[in-house]
Amino acid sequence: MSLIYLLDLCAVAVCAVTATLEARRRELDLFGVVVIAIIAGIGGGTVRDILLGRLPVYWIHDPIYVIVGMVAAMLAFFLERRLAIPMDFFLLPDAIGLALFTVIGVSIALGANVHWFIAALMGVVTGVFGGVIRDILCNEVPLIFRTDIYATASLLGAFLLIALDRLGMAHDPALMAAMAMVVAIRLAAIRWHIHLPRMRPYGS
Amino acid sequence: MSLIYLLDLCAVAVCAVTATLEARRRELDLFGVVVIAIIAGIGGGTVRDILLGRLPVYWIHDPIYVIVGMVAAMLAFFLERRLAIPMDFFLLPDAIGLALFTVIGVSIALGANVHWFIAALMGVVTGVFGGVIRDILCNEVPLIFRTDIYATASLLGAFLLIALDRLGMAHDPALMAAMAMVVAIRLAAIRWHIHLPRMRPYGS
Amino acid sequence: MSLIYLLDLCAVAVCAVTATLEARRRELDLFGVVVIAIIAGIGGGTVRDILLGRLPVYWIHDPIYVIVGMVAAMLAFFLERRLAIPMDFFLLPDAIGLALFTVIGVSIALGANVHWFIAALMGVVTGVFGGVIRDILCNEVPLIFRTDIYATASLLGAFLLIALDRLGMAHDPALMAAMAMVVAIRLAAIRWHIHLPRMRPYGS
Repeated sequence: MSLIYLLDLCAVAVCAVTATLEARRRELDLFGVVVIAIIAGIGGGTVRDILLGRLPVYWIHDPIYVIVGMVAAMLAFFLERRLAIPMDFFLLPDAIGLALFTVIGVSIALGANVHWFIAALMGVVTGVFGGVIRDILCNEVPLIFRTDIYATASLLGAFLLIALDRLGMAHDPALMAAMAMVVAIRLAAIRWHIHLPRMRPYGS
Repeated sequence: MSLIYLLDLCAVAVCAVTATLEARRRELDLFGVVVIAIIAGIGGGTVRDILLGRLPVYWIHDPIYVIVGMVAAMLAFFLERRLAIPMDFFLLPDAIGLALFTVIGVSIALGANVHWFIAALMGVVTGVFGGVIRDILCNEVPLIFRTDIYATASLLGAFLLIALDRLGMAHDPALMAAMAMVVAIRLAAIRWHIHLPRMRPYGS
Repeated sequence: MSLIYLLDLCAVAVCAVTATLEARRRELDLFGVVVIAIIAGIGGGTVRDILLGRLPVYWIHDPIYVIVGMVAAMLAFFLERRLAIPMDFFLLPDAIGLALFTVIGVSIALGANVHWFIAALMGVVTGVFGGVIRDILCNEVPLIFRTDIYATASLLGAFLLIALDRLGMAHDPALMAAMAMVVAIRLAAIRWHIHLPRMRPYGS
């Protein structure tokens, strides 16, 4: 549990940093960037907790999550010009964060005794909704609705975790296997530009 | 109750299909379309349940809603080029869906013993917020804030249901009367282009 | 308590009026304007209540909030052409509303026994999220993420209230001091164009 907690905080930090770098494209002030970064980090779990009725939401009684997101965003804000970190640098941490949020979401939903299909959805919600809210606040069509296999990797990992759980595998190895699958699919999709069928805009 | 349940699922499917056709205007991938379509179908009831504190929200313990929305969206996604269904085809089903969501929302709110005015609002929220969230995710000013009598039809139907309920009419005929009123107002507004006063943009 | 309640209703009305005037820039109909204005007035407290698990949210059992927002928005809608009220007129009432929402949010959160840092956040959420949701519905990057010291004033006032509370000051004078600080910082920021460091858009 302690390792998961630590990884969870790392995932929040990674989300906050990538959100800060994303926000470069908009003329936002420090406050705006920090708030959007925090929401990107904790938004997915917040929506999951609200839908499941686990209130107050998880970070209300543990301010560390908000503080980690805030510090990561401020560091990224002030250092980004100096370090010129390329976005590519974050592809692997980001994929690991997606994997981690997904398995945490599924575990929590299974613990709340919901249908397995809903548990898989809660994994995806935890994994991707932070980014959805981030993009809405930046006034963009959420990236995950337009881009390559992101949420799909989360969904397949969620299904694997649930299947292994049903087959009686111990929880920790099942978590690891599901996370490995999310990361592998995500990186393969980036590497070979795999994507789902797209709607052609009307009239094209 | 069984008929209401079936109609409710039909309304979710209609919302999902119209959301999919709406999404033609945006370059979304399959995942994006399906998620937006599901949210369009179940978003109104979800917001109502959260505001009223009926958690977990209604579809957590009944995955059929999500599955119906998903299947309807996928069918619409893959068939839309082939069938070339005109949007007009959905005006009547859409009006019935609005009517149904409205009366379900009012009934649930009355059952939660809230003030009649709030119960009417919950009917409108259930009826229109799925579309509001759909439009936000598509990065548009929600259609219902710009277009003709849509939410107004929902509000008037909600008031009628509450009035009939107060006057002691049995619940089922009251539901039918309120739904008929929503559908009639909505179709009349479309037919004769009735709309509320609009704000002229500043400077015009 | 009665004075706070009355001031709270005034703050809702001010938010609704400024939202209506803001909405001039968009071609919205009466319904759209009124809904956006109501949400601007009660949205912050609604998000706070959901995050804290205080459900149903506060206005469900007290329809006065919604009615005040609705009436204020309708008056502003129909009178704005006639009266030509300049936006500047609302700067002071708006600052007072921000101050009031902030101290109410902090007080409620402290009453729910959360960490002081989270209580301060809940003050900011109560103070600014109505405006955030308003801007999202109007399809704009929320103003508070781009503009001068607005949320920052709310945050500093929240910290002051918590510090005075810890130091054992009676609640009413502490509320007044914190509100005075929010108003003073906000007006000073407007007067001297103080703002936080901004991100330069990428490529500039």
